[in-house]
Amino acid sequence: MSFKSLDELRAACTDLWPGDEAAATAALARQDTLTKPQGSLGRLEEIAAWLARWQGRAMPRLDRVQVVVFAGSHGVTAQGVSAFPAEVTHQMVANFSAGGAAINQLARAAGATLSVVPLEVERPTGDFTQEAAMDETDFLAAVTAGYEAVGDDVDLACFGEMGIGNTTTAAALAAALFGGEPSKWVGRGTGVDDAGLKRKAVAIEKGLALQGDALGDPLRVAAAFGGRELAAIMGATLAARHKRVPVLLDGFVCTAAAAPLQKLEPTGLAHALAGHVSAEAGHRRLLQAMRLSPLLDLGMRLGEGSGACLAVNVVRSALACHAGMASFAEAGVSEK
Amino acid sequence: MSFKSLDELRAACTDLWPGDEAAATAALARQDTLTKPQGSLGRLEEIAAWLARWQGRAMPRLDRVQVVVFAGSHGVTAQGVSAFPAEVTHQMVANFSAGGAAINQLARAAGATLSVVPLEVERPTGDFTQEAAMDETDFLAAVTAGYEAVGDDVDLACFGEMGIGNTTTAAALAAALFGGEPSKWVGRGTGVDDAGLKRKAVAIEKGLALQGDALGDPLRVAAAFGGRELAAIMGATLAARHKRVPVLLDGFVCTAAAAPLQKLEPTGLAHALAGHVSAEAGHRRLLQAMRLSPLLDLGMRLGEGSGACLAVNVVRSALACHAGMASFAEAGVSEK
Repeated sequence: MSFKSLDELRAACTDLWPGDEAAATAALARQDTLTKPQGSLGRLEEIAAWLARWQGRAMPRLDRVQVVVFAGSHGVTAQGVSAFPAEVTHQMVANFSAGGAAINQLARAAGATLSVVPLEVERPTGDFTQEAAMDETDFLAAVTAGYEAVGDDVDLACFGEMGIGNTTTAAALAAALFGGEPSKWVGRGTGVDDAGLKRKAVAIEKGLALQGDALGDPLRVAAAFGGRELAAIMGATLAARHKRVPVLLDGFVCTAAAAPLQKLEPTGLAHALAGHVSAEAGHRRLLQAMRLSPLLDLGMRLGEGSGACLAVNVVRSALACHAGMASFAEAGVSEK
Repeated sequence: MSFKSLDELRAACTDLWPGDEAAATAALARQDTLTKPQGSLGRLEEIAAWLARWQGRAMPRLDRVQVVVFAGSHGVTAQGVSAFPAEVTHQMVANFSAGGAAINQLARAAGATLSVVPLEVERPTGDFTQEAAMDETDFLAAVTAGYEAVGDDVDLACFGEMGIGNTTTAAALAAALFGGEPSKWVGRGTGVDDAGLKRKAVAIEKGLALQGDALGDPLRVAAAFGGRELAAIMGATLAARHKRVPVLLDGFVCTAAAAPLQKLEPTGLAHALAGHVSAEAGHRRLLQAMRLSPLLDLGMRLGEGSGACLAVNVVRSALACHAGMASFAEAGVSEK
């Protein structure tokens, strides 16, 4: 699917599969027959039913778990918002390809395939304190690239990101979509000091003042603040819904990137679970605003899809119990 | 090691390997060279150093992960403290052997070997509202069985339990070791109603009144309230320390079982991390009392070692990053 206009994309964001209620009901009914006190597997039971609903199968599978890391460059780095130089984005893309980054190890440990999609890393988006990060054409191209990155026949997907400066972009998106002072949304990202933190908030204030006319429209917000990798994550998350692929959201940047889908349609992220809550300051607030309850809380703040990938193991364990446990009748165990 | 007296056991509980400080320091130093902002892997970095310290290797390994489930029967079930009949303990041991329980699936998903050690399941411990759960001989036999269950050359261990009635036993242990009203320590276990919850608290009050002379000695507390599977977990956790095997604690029962080691020696559980916090009411309070911070919080309340086993995947991911990531120098990535 190649999106040719904001209106076409907007229509795709509201024309959504509602999920398979019967599959979810069957999965929950099965859970209640298994040899354990009802409900004692906690969120693992919820996950089994969620997989069933969004794969459309009472007995879900996890044969193909896909991790895609999108990378992009941000004009707003000119405002001194990151602890690392902008060229690190490019260098880390090379590190992903060579297998040396955290996400390479985490994807392997989770039994997932990893691919990396660089989005014009040599051409930063516009600095949103001065202009829109992307025009409509650029924005739709990035959304389309994300949409097309989701494979057919995938059972679970995680979308990660790399982009020096993108916690500022994410905080700008969060402030534009959910309101509140920019200072409430910014965090230390890769490790800025107090002055850097202040520069992040100031940049967002400037951006919001400059691009106020975009604020009523989640898609125009996503274009105005960027970046390309965030737009791609939005596109990929939308594609997953259309292709019946459940999604684990990663950290602050990924969650902010996907947020327009929920703003456009309240059930737009029903096929997604929050894989973890990041130590990046704004993430817990953002998850609360989006009524998402994270599976993991391990103090991580790396991005790349790392937290979502860690949560894949929880989902695998949930399915292992769902598929492999004996029922009370099968095992000859007395019930309550 | 076969313990012949409480004094011999007490000596073993205080004669402890202090861990390998140099290995932990080297692991943390390596973490700071890897291609990520320092500290951005959160608890995964802490876990890498913890593994290094307690395996005694700067580069830890996880080739052999052992899960042992201990099962025992509890005289206190005569007080109507469980939602399930006592024979379920025996039936679940058969279910473990047949591969149909949650822990079978979770151990496989975690790449761990599972063994089950039934501890005289046909001979319940004494009802602690009427008498000591175990005399010294019985208690030392159970501790020894646990101690001997830990294999040589194990890289990480999880100890689980099965025993209808044992959340009452665990709550009694917690109340006896840490004080506070029994009603603060009891929970719904496998699913008792309000009346059952009340019976649990009353049973513990009776037990504490009857066996007050044991309260000053953590080992006598463990014998007085039982059960055998809790004593075995204590023995196994002690063996792990002596054999340089890091341990992931499971839920409320497992944590209460291991607590005497910390009461006898403040660093007695330094080689253990809390794998998860259970939904069973007393667990969060108990972890706080023991200054343990759980890795996972997924609303589970099953026992069997299920929560610890789920956390094995987190530890595997931590090691995967520690062992597999490139350094800034190796990857040619610019630093801050």
